[in-house]
Amino acid sequence: MCRWAAYRGTPIPLEQIVSAPGHSLIEQSHCATQAKTATNGDGFGIAWYGERPEPGLYRDVLPAWSDCNLKSLARQIRSPLFLAHVRASTGGATSRDNCHPFVNGTWSFMHNGQIAGFEKIRRPMEAALSDRLYQARHGTTDSELLFLLAIEFGLATDPAGAFAAAIRFALSEAARAGVTELVRFTAAFSDGRTLHAIRYATDAYAPTLYSAPTCGGQGHCLVSEPFHDTDTKWHEIPAGSFVTLTADGMRSERFDPMRVVAEVAAVA
Amino acid sequence: MCRWAAYRGTPIPLEQIVSAPGHSLIEQSHCATQAKTATNGDGFGIAWYGERPEPGLYRDVLPAWSDCNLKSLARQIRSPLFLAHVRASTGGATSRDNCHPFVNGTWSFMHNGQIAGFEKIRRPMEAALSDRLYQARHGTTDSELLFLLAIEFGLATDPAGAFAAAIRFALSEAARAGVTELVRFTAAFSDGRTLHAIRYATDAYAPTLYSAPTCGGQGHCLVSEPFHDTDTKWHEIPAGSFVTLTADGMRSERFDPMRVVAEVAAVA
Amino acid sequence: MCRWAAYRGTPIPLEQIVSAPGHSLIEQSHCATQAKTATNGDGFGIAWYGERPEPGLYRDVLPAWSDCNLKSLARQIRSPLFLAHVRASTGGATSRDNCHPFVNGTWSFMHNGQIAGFEKIRRPMEAALSDRLYQARHGTTDSELLFLLAIEFGLATDPAGAFAAAIRFALSEAARAGVTELVRFTAAFSDGRTLHAIRYATDAYAPTLYSAPTCGGQGHCLVSEPFHDTDTKWHEIPAGSFVTLTADGMRSERFDPMRVVAEVAAVA
Amino acid sequence: MCRWAAYRGTPIPLEQIVSAPGHSLIEQSHCATQAKTATNGDGFGIAWYGERPEPGLYRDVLPAWSDCNLKSLARQIRSPLFLAHVRASTGGATSRDNCHPFVNGTWSFMHNGQIAGFEKIRRPMEAALSDRLYQARHGTTDSELLFLLAIEFGLATDPAGAFAAAIRFALSEAARAGVTELVRFTAAFSDGRTLHAIRYATDAYAPTLYSAPTCGGQGHCLVSEPFHDTDTKWHEIPAGSFVTLTADGMRSERFDPMRVVAEVAAVA
Repeated sequence: MCRWAAYRGTPIPLEQIVSAPGHSLIEQSHCATQAKTATNGDGFGIAWYGERPEPGLYRDVLPAWSDCNLKSLARQIRSPLFLAHVRASTGGATSRDNCHPFVNGTWSFMHNGQIAGFEKIRRPMEAALSDRLYQARHGTTDSELLFLLAIEFGLATDPAGAFAAAIRFALSEAARAGVTELVRFTAAFSDGRTLHAIRYATDAYAPTLYSAPTCGGQGHCLVSEPFHDTDTKWHEIPAGSFVTLTADGMRSERFDPMRVVAEVAAVA
Repeated sequence: MCRWAAYRGTPIPLEQIVSAPGHSLIEQSHCATQAKTATNGDGFGIAWYGERPEPGLYRDVLPAWSDCNLKSLARQIRSPLFLAHVRASTGGATSRDNCHPFVNGTWSFMHNGQIAGFEKIRRPMEAALSDRLYQARHGTTDSELLFLLAIEFGLATDPAGAFAAAIRFALSEAARAGVTELVRFTAAFSDGRTLHAIRYATDAYAPTLYSAPTCGGQGHCLVSEPFHDTDTKWHEIPAGSFVTLTADGMRSERFDPMRVVAEVAAVA
Repeated sequence: MCRWAAYRGTPIPLEQIVSAPGHSLIEQSHCATQAKTATNGDGFGIAWYGERPEPGLYRDVLPAWSDCNLKSLARQIRSPLFLAHVRASTGGATSRDNCHPFVNGTWSFMHNGQIAGFEKIRRPMEAALSDRLYQARHGTTDSELLFLLAIEFGLATDPAGAFAAAIRFALSEAARAGVTELVRFTAAFSDGRTLHAIRYATDAYAPTLYSAPTCGGQGHCLVSEPFHDTDTKWHEIPAGSFVTLTADGMRSERFDPMRVVAEVAAVA
Repeated sequence: MCRWAAYRGTPIPLEQIVSAPGHSLIEQSHCATQAKTATNGDGFGIAWYGERPEPGLYRDVLPAWSDCNLKSLARQIRSPLFLAHVRASTGGATSRDNCHPFVNGTWSFMHNGQIAGFEKIRRPMEAALSDRLYQARHGTTDSELLFLLAIEFGLATDPAGAFAAAIRFALSEAARAGVTELVRFTAAFSDGRTLHAIRYATDAYAPTLYSAPTCGGQGHCLVSEPFHDTDTKWHEIPAGSFVTLTADGMRSERFDPMRVVAEVAAVA
């Protein structure tokens, strides 16, 4: 189980969310209280939007709390929209290519959760990628693969539909492989203008997702777990939600990848 | 607070102590229960004796649990005497040069504990080193410095006396600098033949130290905290102890760096 | 273009081939004279056989010349059969998973060379792997993929035939994809008992391969380029060779993956 | 021998100097032609000024050419004044703390050159630091030490005088220690407003220093060696120069640390 935070609003130094003492993501990475694993020391990453359409990306395999570079960058870089992630690997090697966020073109993506039995369905999932996206796969995680599948399935035009399709595809491959059909998925992603988040699981244990106005109302923050400060009024997003943050504020819709299938099945 | 384990006996693969699942140092590094900090993800190191007088040394800044190299090395390398350490930094940069064990000539050393206010007495402590040992200082930790001071003060001929002198010196410099006089020191060190350990503190909170016969009686293990297995009968070494492990077994003496001073003061 | 050295014979410390000053692989990594790229600073690796059937593996992304761990390991570890590699990436990210040697079960493999247009045929080459070997692919290099394909095509029973088949397969996929059919391949590999090497190219520029008795006749060394010492009598292995080193000495056979195909074509 | 580049002018993305293909510092780090060592693969660093008085700092021990993070950062970060450095270690461990630039408060500093016999005079040079700067020393290089000594000797008010004093001090300590008196020193440093450079040596081999207007006249570039492009008109700065770049342009003065001493000696 990993942890992440995302921001959209007036440009602020990344450190206000990423590394400020007492109430930031790095502070959390040492002693997360609601996560299954006690620490998130298997790498970290930040993706931020600035003057270019594609985001900047900084990832490394050290624990976030011990990286001097991250501290300096978070202090110097100012951005109106960024994603930050600390990783707790549930297995597999620690490498930069497996650190979140993942970036493709103007899109960035990060994730907390898992696909049960991923190793057994990884191959057919990779086979569903077009040649272009197959070559764009650099790591070995289920997270990166869900992101690439969402791009394959129309992320550019229908973000909610694309991730619903990616999750449905994973579940159908799991069924075919005789794997327990379990997806837990709390993610944030952006094209540099809009910030989205999803909280979803096939069972009752969707990883948590919270939102709050932050920095004196200058922007909104989405986090996998609330920071330990008393000032911020965190609002828990219920499971089965698709959240959209734009300049006009935040809105939330129902997210249920299986509903479409269920309806189709009912008709048939 | 760091964690460590040391072994002396019949040559065994390092993995039996370092990385075996369920009851090894790496397993502990994820979720230490008696240590102040929950994880030990700020680097690790192993020093082992083989066919050469000086030990081999492998250290890195990654968390021990995510280093594939360490797993392979611990499986391949067999040694009759080795030290293994996982680090939880209490501040300062994570670098290889600050990872334990430290090595100088045939000696190896690792440590769990601290000198209060070290930054204020680091300079006079470094000034007490001879030119040769001053140049042998590669990192910035209090641990390495206590080790080098012990070498300066006669480690080769009187191990207990040398570390007592190093601790006394630190305390006297602390007094001179107006720093709270506090040293907590649980360490292991070796010249490749004998394995020593010390448990000591100026207050009532000396970091723990345990011993046990291990590997079916083939050798002895000294650890900063017992492993979570049920088979091994761990014996807690009391504070104020100087432990010596040779081919003839283990013996323990009282270790009280201030007693000499007290006696001298009484006489005077 | 990378560089490598392999040894088989009486157990020796790895440092004699890997890191001894003046005539070793690391020395070469700084200023290779016959290689296309001036330096080999994109990571390194060693695989060695000891008491276990599977080899030990140590790889990292630093330049070999600046890794203190490698120096210490090469000094302490003694082995009768080992492979050592320094990497000069021709593109792509530097990660441990892309460093040679690659290991699978008891087999180890390292390579100097390239497949032209690999990116265009990577996908069908990966598709030819069985599920087990598909999951065993950790990196993204053409080298690792040729190794896994050779395992797929019978490395255990017919080493020369298996690599010939892997190369033929790569060339046929290249032809199908309209890529220039070019493979340059100088590799060493072992199962822990026998050491093999191949020098081959589809054009006139097969990367070099040399052999020599070494360490006072205690063993044999195979290298991609001779070391700069005057004592060793290096023997250049001609292109189109398959070399086998056993306890009985070295023998060399012709290696021509396309001959079989040519003969088949002639018959048909 | 290392290589570096510094820029002052209209804010530009760092990549124009740091990583642009064909004519940038990273391009050079692979195959430097005028430097003594063929490659500069022992780490790199960038320090840049933005909205805060103190510079941002990003350093790592990988070769610059293989670091994806550096490529992304150099593309996203825009700055009116920055320093970039690629390192070729002449000995000693590769660690982040030994990578240039070095930063202290608002000052940044980087260097190409050496002090002969530094190991023998390191200790008295460190002893000349005040407690505050002694604690600010994180690495073990002669470069960082000269920078801290210059701060000690008045960098804030008299940059040329401070570095002259630091070099004089090193030479006097060398004389006292019976070391060959040799300093080669080509450095750049800044307080975030003004960019300075020095080219100096006690012998005839001062490491090179060049300047050129760059980016269509938007700014000035100072480099240790000219980039391999044909468009830029590089101007070689003679040995014994102290260069100052401000909004008013570039000026150069004579820099001769020993002249003062010589004059004082003549008077006496």
